[in-house]
Amino acid sequence: MKAVGIVVEYNPFHNGHAYHLQQSRQISDADIVIAVMSGQFLQRGEPALLPKWQRAKMALSAGVDIVIELPYQFATQKADTFAFGAVSLLSQIGASILCFGSESGEIEHFYHTLQFLKNNKEKYEERIKLNMAQGMSYPSATSSAFLELDPSEKIIDLSKPNNILGFQYVKAINDLGINMRPITIPRTKAGYHDERFSSETIASATSIRKSLFTTGGSLSEINSYIPNTTAAILDDYYRTYKQFQRWENYWPFLKYRLLHASGTELRNIYEVEEGLENRVIEAALAANSFKDFMSIVKTKRYTWTRLQRMCTHILTNTTFDEMNEIMKEANYIRLLGMNDNGRKYLNQWKKHASIPLVSKLSSYHGDDIKLDIRASRVYALGAKEEMTQELLQMEYKQPPFYMTN
Amino acid sequence: MKAVGIVVEYNPFHNGHAYHLQQSRQISDADIVIAVMSGQFLQRGEPALLPKWQRAKMALSAGVDIVIELPYQFATQKADTFAFGAVSLLSQIGASILCFGSESGEIEHFYHTLQFLKNNKEKYEERIKLNMAQGMSYPSATSSAFLELDPSEKIIDLSKPNNILGFQYVKAINDLGINMRPITIPRTKAGYHDERFSSETIASATSIRKSLFTTGGSLSEINSYIPNTTAAILDDYYRTYKQFQRWENYWPFLKYRLLHASGTELRNIYEVEEGLENRVIEAALAANSFKDFMSIVKTKRYTWTRLQRMCTHILTNTTFDEMNEIMKEANYIRLLGMNDNGRKYLNQWKKHASIPLVSKLSSYHGDDIKLDIRASRVYALGAKEEMTQELLQMEYKQPPFYMTN
Repeated sequence: MKAVGIVVEYNPFHNGHAYHLQQSRQISDADIVIAVMSGQFLQRGEPALLPKWQRAKMALSAGVDIVIELPYQFATQKADTFAFGAVSLLSQIGASILCFGSESGEIEHFYHTLQFLKNNKEKYEERIKLNMAQGMSYPSATSSAFLELDPSEKIIDLSKPNNILGFQYVKAINDLGINMRPITIPRTKAGYHDERFSSETIASATSIRKSLFTTGGSLSEINSYIPNTTAAILDDYYRTYKQFQRWENYWPFLKYRLLHASGTELRNIYEVEEGLENRVIEAALAANSFKDFMSIVKTKRYTWTRLQRMCTHILTNTTFDEMNEIMKEANYIRLLGMNDNGRKYLNQWKKHASIPLVSKLSSYHGDDIKLDIRASRVYALGAKEEMTQELLQMEYKQPPFYMTN
Repeated sequence: MKAVGIVVEYNPFHNGHAYHLQQSRQISDADIVIAVMSGQFLQRGEPALLPKWQRAKMALSAGVDIVIELPYQFATQKADTFAFGAVSLLSQIGASILCFGSESGEIEHFYHTLQFLKNNKEKYEERIKLNMAQGMSYPSATSSAFLELDPSEKIIDLSKPNNILGFQYVKAINDLGINMRPITIPRTKAGYHDERFSSETIASATSIRKSLFTTGGSLSEINSYIPNTTAAILDDYYRTYKQFQRWENYWPFLKYRLLHASGTELRNIYEVEEGLENRVIEAALAANSFKDFMSIVKTKRYTWTRLQRMCTHILTNTTFDEMNEIMKEANYIRLLGMNDNGRKYLNQWKKHASIPLVSKLSSYHGDDIKLDIRASRVYALGAKEEMTQELLQMEYKQPPFYMTN
C-alpha cells in the first residue's frame, strides 16, 4: 500500500485542510493518508484550541486514514527541528511521499533553493549574521540573504511561513537520505482557483479561532469554513468543557511559575537565553494577563512566536538538557487514531517496524515520552477546574480513535 | 522603656488574644507590647486567612504597640525552630520579658521540664525513638517519654500544642543564653476564670475561620468572639477581596507544581523526605481538591501539620539548601506596624540596634529576606484573579501601619 504523509496541526480542521487532504491523496495517487499531528502545544508556542484526541477525530472524520502524534520535542520548535521530527516519523511509518501546502507551489524551486544553499553556505550564513546584526528577525534575515545572493525567480520566498516549513521538509528528506518524494500544492491559491473552495468557504485557522473566542463558542460565523464533522466536534467539546483552550487559561500558572522559580531554574529552561530570565520575572510581576505579559517582554530581537515557545517550555518545565537529549530522533510513534484502511496498513507495517507503535501509555516505558505526558498534564490544568480531572485522565485512558468505514 | 514580647499569628485576632494581650501587659508591668507575628504562611503550614498587613492592623487596633514579622524560615517550622526564631527576634528588638499562654500555666513546670530533659537527655531520646518505632507521632512520643521518665506532676504535658511552644520558648531563651524572663498565663482557663471573658465571648481561631468559610464571610455568628476592630477589618477585606485565603485557593498551583516538577526538583524541597515525592505526585494526579489530596497523602507516619508544611514549601519552592542557609539567625527585623508608643520605643532602640529594621522592602538588600518576598508573591496568587495584582503590590508598596493614639 502506497502511503502519503502530511504534517498538520488542525487547530481546528477547516475546509482549507480538507482541500489539502483531498489534493494530497489525488496527486500522490496514494492508498493511505497518514497525518503526523502536533499534540497539546503547537509550533507557534500555543496550547491547541482543543486536545489532540478531539483534533485526531476531526482528521479521521474528514478522511485521514492514520493520525500519529508529533512529539512535544518537535512540535514546539522552530521550523528546522519541527520538520526534521515530522519527516523522520513519517519515514519511520513508511510514507513514501510527503505532500505539503506552500505559498510557492513549485517543488522544483524548493530543490533549487536547497542546492543553492549547499553551494553558497558560507556566504549565506555571513549574510544572515549581517542582516540580524542590522536588527532583522531570523526569518527575515534568511529570506533577505537568499534574495540578495540569487535574485533568480527560482529561489523561494523564505519569509512566507509555509515556504519555510516546506523548505525544511525538503531539507530534512535530503539530510536524512531517505527515499521520500516531496510534492507541494499552492496554498494561498486554493481559495481562488478551485470551484469547490471559493473565498466564501476558506478562512484561516487563526480567524476561525478568533471568532470562536469572541462569540463565546458560537459556530454561526464559521460554519461555512469548516466541515460539518468539525462543527459537531467543536460543539460537543464546548458543551462539555465550557471553553476552548488558549494562553490566557494558562496565564495564572505561568505567572505562578515565574514568581516562584529561581533565576537558575529559569536559565535551565529550553530557549531561555541569558538575561531573559530577569526580564520575564519582572514582566510577570507587572502583568495582569498573558497579553500584557507578552507586550512587556517583547523586544525587536525576539519574534512573538519565539517568545511564546519559550513561555510554553517554562510552563511545561522543559529544560535545555532534557530537550537536547531526546530531540535527535523519534523512538516511538504514538497512535491517536485510524480507520479500517489505516488499520490494515498498520498491521502490514508492524511486521517490519523498527520503533514501537504506542496505543496505550501503559505499554511504553521509554523516558523519551515524558515530555508528551507532562505537556498533557499541564494542558489539562487550563481546563475549567471541574473538568481538569477528565482532561487529565484522557492522556492515560483514551485509546486511539477507531473509525469504521 | 520595659518591653514584653508576645508570639502571635492572629488568624484572626479574637477575644482570647485580647485577653492574652491585656494580661501580658498587666503581669509584666511593661510599657510596651511587641508582637512578633507570622507572615503569609503559618505554623500549621497554612496560608493566613488574610494578609500580614491586615492582621498587623488588627493587632495595633487592639493595643499592641509594635508588630514585626516572623520570617518565613521560622514561621512555617515545627515548634523548636519556630520558637528559636521568635525568641531571638524579640531579644534583638529588646524585649526583656516573654509572655505566652499555655495549657500548663505554671512557668516553674517549664523550668522543671527543661532541667529534667538536660539531666536525662539520652534516656529521653531513646524512649522517643522507641515510641516512634511503635507508631507514635513525634509529639505523642515526646509527651509519653516525659511521663514515663518522670511521673511527677511538675512535668508539663507536651502533647498540648501551647505547652510545646512554651517549652520551646523557654528552651530557646536558655540555649541563646539571653536575659529574657518568660512568664505564662493559663490558656484554656481564660474563658472560665475571668468574668469579662465567659465562654460566650471566647472561641478558637479555628472555629472562627470555619464559620467565616461556611457562612461565606458573614460575621453574624462570630461577632461576639472578636473585637469590633477585628470585625471591621475582616468586613473590609472581604468586601474588597471577595474571599478569605485558604489552602483550596492554592490547590490549582500546588497541583500544577506537582505535575510539572521532576522528582529531583521535589526531593530538593525542604521537608520532602525520600520517597514522599512520588507519593505526592501520584496523589496530585488523582485528587480533585486540596482536602482530597491530603487524605490520599496522609499516613500514620506523618502528622497533618507536617504534611501541610511540606506542601507550603513545595508551593513556595523553598529548598532544603536555602532554608538551612538562613534559618540559623534572623538578620533583619521587618516592621509591619506601630503606634506612638511603639515609635518612641523604636527611636530609642535604633541607637544601639545590631540588625536593620526594614520598613520598606526597597531599603533592604539582604538575600535572607527572599523567602518572605516569595511567600508574599505566591500568597497573592491565591486571591481572586482580578485582585492578585493589588495583593502582590502590597508586599512592595505597603508602608508599616502607623496608628496614632
